Amino acid sequence: MYNIITISRQFGSGGRSIAKSVAEELGYAYYDKELIKEVAEKTGFDPRYIEEAGEYAKSRSIFSYALPFTGSGHGAVGAGGMSTSDFLWVMQRKVILELAEKGPCVIVGRCADYILRERTDALHVFVHADEAFRADRIVRLYGESEKSPEARLKDKDGRRAVNYKYYTGREWGKAEFYDLSINSGKLGIENCVSVIAGFAKHNG
Amino acid sequence: MYNIITISRQFGSGGRSIAKSVAEELGYAYYDKELIKEVAEKTGFDPRYIEEAGEYAKSRSIFSYALPFTGSGHGAVGAGGMSTSDFLWVMQRKVILELAEKGPCVIVGRCADYILRERTDALHVFVHADEAFRADRIVRLYGESEKSPEARLKDKDGRRAVNYKYYTGREWGKAEFYDLSINSGKLGIENCVSVIAGFAKHNG
Repeated sequence: MYNIITISRQFGSGGRSIAKSVAEELGYAYYDKELIKEVAEKTGFDPRYIEEAGEYAKSRSIFSYALPFTGSGHGAVGAGGMSTSDFLWVMQRKVILELAEKGPCVIVGRCADYILRERTDALHVFVHADEAFRADRIVRLYGESEKSPEARLKDKDGRRAVNYKYYTGREWGKAEFYDLSINSGKLGIENCVSVIAGFAKHNG
Repeated sequence: MYNIITISRQFGSGGRSIAKSVAEELGYAYYDKELIKEVAEKTGFDPRYIEEAGEYAKSRSIFSYALPFTGSGHGAVGAGGMSTSDFLWVMQRKVILELAEKGPCVIVGRCADYILRERTDALHVFVHADEAFRADRIVRLYGESEKSPEARLKDKDGRRAVNYKYYTGREWGKAEFYDLSINSGKLGIENCVSVIAGFAKHNG
């Protein structure tokens, strides 16, 4: 049995729905908005700020992120020289470690795969799909916007990748950092759920 | 049903054993040495040369590969200005496309995932494992050598990555280029076989 399942996902790949269904199938706690709520309570920050800043680098020129560890892309520097984003990282990490201690769970995004990399009872999953599948899905789920769906995908995943690299030093979406990476567009959302839940039940 | 399964793998991950077992379980043809033999017959090159040059960039300073499309890292330039490696790529690609037309099969390595990327009935798999698992496995299978097992892994996969990038323009081991990427060290060789064969039977 794997007690913890982390699910990282490309925007629009259905990773969140997959995570929810896996949690239901296994009877595990599911942490996504709940995690944000907990961080909000601990920090006093607005949940909407945490949802955004806890996973996405700011929209900016890529060049400002190319300077490592200046904090330039990650929010204003607060008291004591720590940026608000770095403070949020510290608190979010703490919440994730605490939730993982509470009992079996599925955690979506937020670098949980990295934060829990030393838990041998954790299964780390990455969900991806081709661009057409994801573009279609975000328009169906979230509606149209001024930007093209392709640009929205690129922006969101680009900022996830920058944030991930900044805080973990790792490249987002590289197969070797996950135990299982799966193309939900090609293999189907339901098949993804059964493979992940199957592994969780029979291994670990 | 997926008629074609391509298996890319980190050195020492057991990808080749997995591929062989998947082929047996599905009753598919298995192409690895057979493919090399076929290319040897078509080109007149020594099979040992094809085995090496058809998948690995030469051992050299990384800097010589940083110059794109000079062919500098890929064998001498032959008649008509084509390097032997480029000629080998052309022939190997041709053989892979022909074999894929013949009927259901499993193909190991050799950029087959890229070459067959437009076949909608192909399932593309990447097998990886952590370094300790792979180091232990290569010493058990291939014995000790002067180099440390870790250096051997790094050298071999580094040259695979350079070769892959050179001929496909893609980054080797990035999850989004495969339908399924799987950690054989953590999930077990036999589980990998059943997940891959299971997908091949029930989807596509």
